[in-house]
Amino acid sequence: MKPQTPSLTVDILILFENRLVLVKRKNPPYQGKFALPGGFVDIGESTEKAAARESFEETGLSVEIIKLVGVYSDPQRDPRGHTVSVCYLAKGSGKLKYGSDAASAEPFELDSIPELAFDHNKMINDAKSDINAILYQM
Amino acid sequence: MKPQTPSLTVDILILFENRLVLVKRKNPPYQGKFALPGGFVDIGESTEKAAARESFEETGLSVEIIKLVGVYSDPQRDPRGHTVSVCYLAKGSGKLKYGSDAASAEPFELDSIPELAFDHNKMINDAKSDINAILYQM
Repeated sequence: MKPQTPSLTVDILILFENRLVLVKRKNPPYQGKFALPGGFVDIGESTEKAAARESFEETGLSVEIIKLVGVYSDPQRDPRGHTVSVCYLAKGSGKLKYGSDAASAEPFELDSIPELAFDHNKMINDAKSDINAILYQM
Repeated sequence: MKPQTPSLTVDILILFENRLVLVKRKNPPYQGKFALPGGFVDIGESTEKAAARESFEETGLSVEIIKLVGVYSDPQRDPRGHTVSVCYLAKGSGKLKYGSDAASAEPFELDSIPELAFDHNKMINDAKSDINAILYQM
């Protein structure tokens, strides 16, 4: 029998034109709040591929993963149930889908990040020195 | 409906008395091979707590987690089905359960690691510089 384990998600810090791409949530929980692009990992899909797929679906961007930021597994972090998220830092390229019907993705300056859904502000904070190092090189 | 995502496990690189603790697998797959201590994450349990619980159950040691080594998510890495593993590097303390009925844990010198189950040799290799830095300080 397949063991019951927490649901697995990915969240992605996408750097695009010196800014960080956020998406506005259309559904509960945290409806109307901005969040990092992300979503559930499919069975048969690596976490890196899930990160690339979710990034493209939600923002229109192709991503190159730079590094693993962390694994976020507090059982209380998602009000829908226990979800463990693998967070990656990535560079985005392509054409951002600004506020389309499919997604309202929006780039933010690092010093103007609003209060985000879930523990996503913590993810950004945990990656801050890596983000700054990359922005400095860009 | 709860989304179907890969099963979630933890594996732990436990440094104990300048050596790395391995456990001999009693069940398939890889029956009789050595492997890193680890197992499935319970719903309602953080990955760090799962790592401490599995370490104690399989080796008798208490662990202090030092850092996240990586997330291993290749869909082919476990012949039983898609399992994503979060790997931690930790320091162990307490009394090691040598070859008991419950587990046959055994410490290995870093230059004498046998061929292990799953992708566990790769995990050790990925953590090698961190392991050496810690052993140097011990």
